[in-house]
Amino acid sequence: MLPYNIHHVAIAVSDLDAAIDAFATQYGFEILSRERIEEQGVEEAMIAVGGSHIQLLEPLEPMSPVGRFLSRNGEGMHHIAFAVADIEAALEHLETIGVRLIDSAPRIGGGGHRIAFVHPTALAGTLFELVEVGNE
Amino acid sequence: MLPYNIHHVAIAVSDLDAAIDAFATQYGFEILSRERIEEQGVEEAMIAVGGSHIQLLEPLEPMSPVGRFLSRNGEGMHHIAFAVADIEAALEHLETIGVRLIDSAPRIGGGGHRIAFVHPTALAGTLFELVEVGNE
Repeated sequence: MLPYNIHHVAIAVSDLDAAIDAFATQYGFEILSRERIEEQGVEEAMIAVGGSHIQLLEPLEPMSPVGRFLSRNGEGMHHIAFAVADIEAALEHLETIGVRLIDSAPRIGGGGHRIAFVHPTALAGTLFELVEVGNE
Repeated sequence: MLPYNIHHVAIAVSDLDAAIDAFATQYGFEILSRERIEEQGVEEAMIAVGGSHIQLLEPLEPMSPVGRFLSRNGEGMHHIAFAVADIEAALEHLETIGVRLIDSAPRIGGGGHRIAFVHPTALAGTLFELVEVGNE
């Protein structure tokens, strides 16, 4: 059940192209993938940073979760995702110890991974995501 | 000059012991080091997550930068730190292309590393830190 890596750190941005350009110019990072995820109301870009990633999220509409985050907070860090080997075991452990979950069962996220979000009230005011990663 | 890893993701917390306990209970993470850094007005704990870290920051006083962050935002993600091999080269590159820096010269941070912060207006509303890491 132990998360073995920071899979990504997500940042909400209002202009995905501008953010991708700025990461390239300032830090030399290149984009790994870009994907429109209707179910989550975002267009996302993944940038590889060593063995981890930065995920940039641009909302598809203002009333989506990331759209509302942007209008409340402006651009900035949105969540931290841990890679886990077995997402059901991780969720079961969290549920057993009384941690409030946003997703009590995995759903499909970017890259086809099974993902689940944990409620930010559970730990340090921070939205955590679990991403099931096989033998990548 | 290319950052080669996410060295840590920092989270501001109001109760360091409670946060350390919660990370252990919820995710099995163990604390790697704990340090009081008077100059930055924080007590910090580093938690190893795969090849990266989560850094927990508790302010030593309410009017410190992290103390003011907490009273404005509550607990939550504070900054992202990239490991760089040569911090002077990285800062020189950023300065050359007109990026606004908080620290134009490196100073000493946690673990004795040379660090510098980049102004959050430079990229995606996010406070980035550079951490010079040798052949660790």
